[in-house]
Amino acid sequence: MDNERAYIFDVFGTLVDWRSSIARQVAEILPQVDAFAFAHDWRSRYQPAMERVRSGERDYVPVDVLHREMLDETLAQFGVDLPDRAAFARSWERLDPWPGVGDQLADLRQRALIAPCSNGSIALMTRLARYAGLPWDTVLGADIAHNYKPLPEVYLSNCAVLGLPPEQVTMVACHNDDLVAASAAGLRTGFIARPTEYGPDQDFDLEPSEDWDEMVTSFADLGR
Amino acid sequence: MDNERAYIFDVFGTLVDWRSSIARQVAEILPQVDAFAFAHDWRSRYQPAMERVRSGERDYVPVDVLHREMLDETLAQFGVDLPDRAAFARSWERLDPWPGVGDQLADLRQRALIAPCSNGSIALMTRLARYAGLPWDTVLGADIAHNYKPLPEVYLSNCAVLGLPPEQVTMVACHNDDLVAASAAGLRTGFIARPTEYGPDQDFDLEPSEDWDEMVTSFADLGR
Repeated sequence: MDNERAYIFDVFGTLVDWRSSIARQVAEILPQVDAFAFAHDWRSRYQPAMERVRSGERDYVPVDVLHREMLDETLAQFGVDLPDRAAFARSWERLDPWPGVGDQLADLRQRALIAPCSNGSIALMTRLARYAGLPWDTVLGADIAHNYKPLPEVYLSNCAVLGLPPEQVTMVACHNDDLVAASAAGLRTGFIARPTEYGPDQDFDLEPSEDWDEMVTSFADLGR
Repeated sequence: MDNERAYIFDVFGTLVDWRSSIARQVAEILPQVDAFAFAHDWRSRYQPAMERVRSGERDYVPVDVLHREMLDETLAQFGVDLPDRAAFARSWERLDPWPGVGDQLADLRQRALIAPCSNGSIALMTRLARYAGLPWDTVLGADIAHNYKPLPEVYLSNCAVLGLPPEQVTMVACHNDDLVAASAAGLRTGFIARPTEYGPDQDFDLEPSEDWDEMVTSFADLGR
């Protein structure tokens, strides 16, 4: 089994276009606000919310709890209300994949185990996989470690439950900082550019910051 | 989401014929022993090994570690040796499904989230799913709880990571004691008979011991 390989994936941004997908759902229910601005504001509260857990200030809660709390803050920021906040907080289960992602993962799956290593929960990722057509072998990520990337324990716990040493597992992301952390934990690294994840004016993560193990434009090119 | 449903499954016995599958692999590599007797002996060490974890005598280790240790004991019992014990301990990743299981699960998956809730590890269940064609949404089970069924925390942690209350989750098994425990934890229950799991002379679990919520002969009849 020494040549067995797994690829684990960042999801928000790397596989799915959260910005356009959240904006679309915002526009449907809150036509009075700037939907993209709302999506950006909601997302901007993600890292600070996770940092409270990573720092030990707060016990681990799945990202669904954070999304719900962050939604309250964004609604207050925009001065608007919603009839069913809990249901709308689950918009993150309905994000469209970048073109071709499902087929590319299915191709890669012929050569390796594949799983998400996202800060999203198993509950969220399981439903998103159905919505976006992501053919996982299993769902991993933050819920396995009870903590959030980029802490090394997230990458390492995900490798451990796959029964593989880190050097047989490749972390794939469009975010260089995710790969910096995964590499430091001993995993292999794969980069794909998503230069419009944050919209047309994005000025970061446009290209690999280091010589990652694999740099591709399609996941079907991984592991070849 | 109040009508969302999940079905979580026992695997060894309920979905796959471990007895014949292990015996087949034993016969290939140890032609000098009674392959069925070897399979039964190996399996007989399963509950005592897990009980040491459940009782707190030993920290949680994935079942793969137990399978490897139990193999040593069974080899000693039969007075035989193997060139690569670690590789052969992974025979449990290669178990044949009972007829029709893959198609039946695919049918059920149109109506509910489906996942294994096995004492097998995520590593084992992920590979077994490929071998046996089990179309899971995700792999759950003992690795999520860091403990073994029938402790209630296994069932409850599996529901929790699916984001569903126990009353929206059905535990499916051919073992009545698994369903007794799941029911006590608040889950719904589904029974299927596997009267030859332990061979032609099996005299237990031939029928449901209680009036379980669903009693079927095909998983395609669940959730209808």
